[in-house]
Amino acid sequence: MKAIVDNPNINYMELLKRPVENDIEIKSRVSVILEMIRVQGDEALKTLTKKFDGVDIDTFEIGRQERVNSKNLVDESSKKSIAAVASNIEAFHSAQKTNTIEVETMPGVKCKLVYRPLKRVGLYIPGGTAPLISTVLMLGIPAKVAGCKELIVCTPPPVNPAILYACSLIKARVFTVGGAQAIAAMAFGTKSIPQVDKIFGPGNSFVTEAKMQVAALGIPIDMPAGPSELLVVADESAEPQFVAADLLSQAEHGVDSQVVLISTSDTIIARILDEIDKQVKALPRKEIALKALKNSWSIKVDNLERAIEISNLYAPEHLILSVSNPEAFESSIENAGSVFIGNYTPESAGDYASGTNHTLPTSGFARNWSGVNLQSFTKTISFQMISPVGLDNLGHHIIELANAEKLAAHANAVQVRLLKLKNDEYDDN
Amino acid sequence: MKAIVDNPNINYMELLKRPVENDIEIKSRVSVILEMIRVQGDEALKTLTKKFDGVDIDTFEIGRQERVNSKNLVDESSKKSIAAVASNIEAFHSAQKTNTIEVETMPGVKCKLVYRPLKRVGLYIPGGTAPLISTVLMLGIPAKVAGCKELIVCTPPPVNPAILYACSLIKARVFTVGGAQAIAAMAFGTKSIPQVDKIFGPGNSFVTEAKMQVAALGIPIDMPAGPSELLVVADESAEPQFVAADLLSQAEHGVDSQVVLISTSDTIIARILDEIDKQVKALPRKEIALKALKNSWSIKVDNLERAIEISNLYAPEHLILSVSNPEAFESSIENAGSVFIGNYTPESAGDYASGTNHTLPTSGFARNWSGVNLQSFTKTISFQMISPVGLDNLGHHIIELANAEKLAAHANAVQVRLLKLKNDEYDDN
Repeated sequence: MKAIVDNPNINYMELLKRPVENDIEIKSRVSVILEMIRVQGDEALKTLTKKFDGVDIDTFEIGRQERVNSKNLVDESSKKSIAAVASNIEAFHSAQKTNTIEVETMPGVKCKLVYRPLKRVGLYIPGGTAPLISTVLMLGIPAKVAGCKELIVCTPPPVNPAILYACSLIKARVFTVGGAQAIAAMAFGTKSIPQVDKIFGPGNSFVTEAKMQVAALGIPIDMPAGPSELLVVADESAEPQFVAADLLSQAEHGVDSQVVLISTSDTIIARILDEIDKQVKALPRKEIALKALKNSWSIKVDNLERAIEISNLYAPEHLILSVSNPEAFESSIENAGSVFIGNYTPESAGDYASGTNHTLPTSGFARNWSGVNLQSFTKTISFQMISPVGLDNLGHHIIELANAEKLAAHANAVQVRLLKLKNDEYDDN
Repeated sequence: MKAIVDNPNINYMELLKRPVENDIEIKSRVSVILEMIRVQGDEALKTLTKKFDGVDIDTFEIGRQERVNSKNLVDESSKKSIAAVASNIEAFHSAQKTNTIEVETMPGVKCKLVYRPLKRVGLYIPGGTAPLISTVLMLGIPAKVAGCKELIVCTPPPVNPAILYACSLIKARVFTVGGAQAIAAMAFGTKSIPQVDKIFGPGNSFVTEAKMQVAALGIPIDMPAGPSELLVVADESAEPQFVAADLLSQAEHGVDSQVVLISTSDTIIARILDEIDKQVKALPRKEIALKALKNSWSIKVDNLERAIEISNLYAPEHLILSVSNPEAFESSIENAGSVFIGNYTPESAGDYASGTNHTLPTSGFARNWSGVNLQSFTKTISFQMISPVGLDNLGHHIIELANAEKLAAHANAVQVRLLKLKNDEYDDN
């Protein structure tokens, strides 16, 4: 980790820039893949799966038998833990349900805002050496709670039984297809993969670029994704051993991960760095963690207010407050994906188990994006019902503004009604 | 209007395709503009404003004096109507405030979801022959209610005093710059125009394309925009004169607008078409309305259930239910931006005055996008606080799942804490 002592002249936006790759090559390759899928559908999916995954696949959807069998291939202790964390995720996201909002804005003018689930959502689950069971749960459970009718999972071959098992819990249809081609298939629809209303989930730089390119066509996505990151604010009360373990848990994600440690205490910083040196040796992903630490910083500040100020500039995906009075700072946290409070709240609790969502904005996007929450799987519809009395109250304002905007037919739609009301009144007398 | 009688073989997605322009040329021109602003900032803004608006502008921000003066240039009856509708918009959006959500998902595991306002939002207000006062209110009032600290309005020269007056009500800073260059300036920031957290507002095809291109870079936008549209479901109880006026109020927006009339009654359809012929003659924007009607359809169906089914496929921006028992159909409406219920609820009420937002998804995007609402101006942050008891309950599940995902450092961050708890307990005994 690189070390720095805070001073007001440091440009933190520059200093703490996330490691990024140049992606012009990726952009154009992804745009070719998108066009192939849009035009050729399943045929292109087959070609690209052969090319990138090295396998011939005729039927992309995984059949019932294979899904049922997956249950026998996951051990009991994993199943118990999956059930426990699923219950926490469900509890937290169920609490986010929003009632219909109803307001009579003026006598006779009733307005409503109604939440409706998206009908069909697409969840991308990356492949790789380990099955990302947690990502299936973090996307699938809120989708079910929101009431989405159909969950489509795309994941590259070979599909791990643990992924299939998790998908069976959320009652998703599973398709063996990965990469930018999977995103394109869910965005446009192919003969075998249905078009979805919104696309969720992490992935490599091709998947991410594909999500951004379909977003430019109007297909909603959960958020722009990037390498994982953690910022820890620590005062003298922090446990160096815990903070070191947290920083390493983030650093092991990938060589492009970044961790930042901000502390009011030189002693604590030194002790945390010592602990990192000790703990990193025992890690199977040591090489990755060591490379990520090279992108990483420790910052000595004069006070915790300044630490929070720098954290807000950085807008971390994960923020740990290892300070003696964390509650005092909660309201000053403006930009962060998820915040972990106190010495017994490791960041990995949020990754798996506490109940909060682990799909969070990275790369500073916590400034202007939310993490995935229940509303990510819903949309709103507004309703209004105006009574004759209501239109009598409101009508002349509509006419006034429609005329100011030179939209005579807008005004006329009110006038014909007001005239009818007047005539009816006349008839009544 | 073209007429058709429903039958199960009609492909409505094809039949009711929105009129769209081919935009490859626009895409590449917008991408050049974006790059110019990103690299040259204000200098490029000046060049492009000279080129597209034909004026030399040195200082883009409109000064205090001009904003104050605008008050004297708007007549009193307009001001009264603006105040009345502003109060309705404020009432409806204030009711959408969401409290912090707090759940103890397991004993000792506390999770929170907190809503925070976006700090600085950018509102694009198109120019043209008439000042879009209503759009300033529809975007600015929810932003203020949400607690956004800074509102940036960009609008092309010459800026109408009514726009300035409305901007002073929402306490926005106003910049005289329009088109794709305005979107780029708000997305990237220039010396004179600050970078914003999210971009809202309608515009021509250049503005829309610029919003989609900055969205692909991760800058949030309100929604993909397109020409306005209205679908009316009418039974025998509909007032032909009212429905005709509503269809025309939508048709006058632009030649690319589209209106759809679905009815169970041939007689009602015929009477509405008659009324349209009568009313259109008196409209100043008659030529525009007539062209829009050429993209438009009337559909005769057997029953209202089928009408709603077709409406859900179409996913209209605006949906009017001119039927005798509209409440019976509310829950079947899956895809619509805003719904207008009953004979005395003209669509223009929602454009200006009822309190609902008029910034709504078009082009079928009501399938998967929300209209602007209070949450459009907020983001969420999650918090978790785990007590030693909580970690004792949850810890082994985190370890189990971290090991399944082969992330040893994630497991270790829990293990070091559980070990400490055990040792402390041992020390206590």
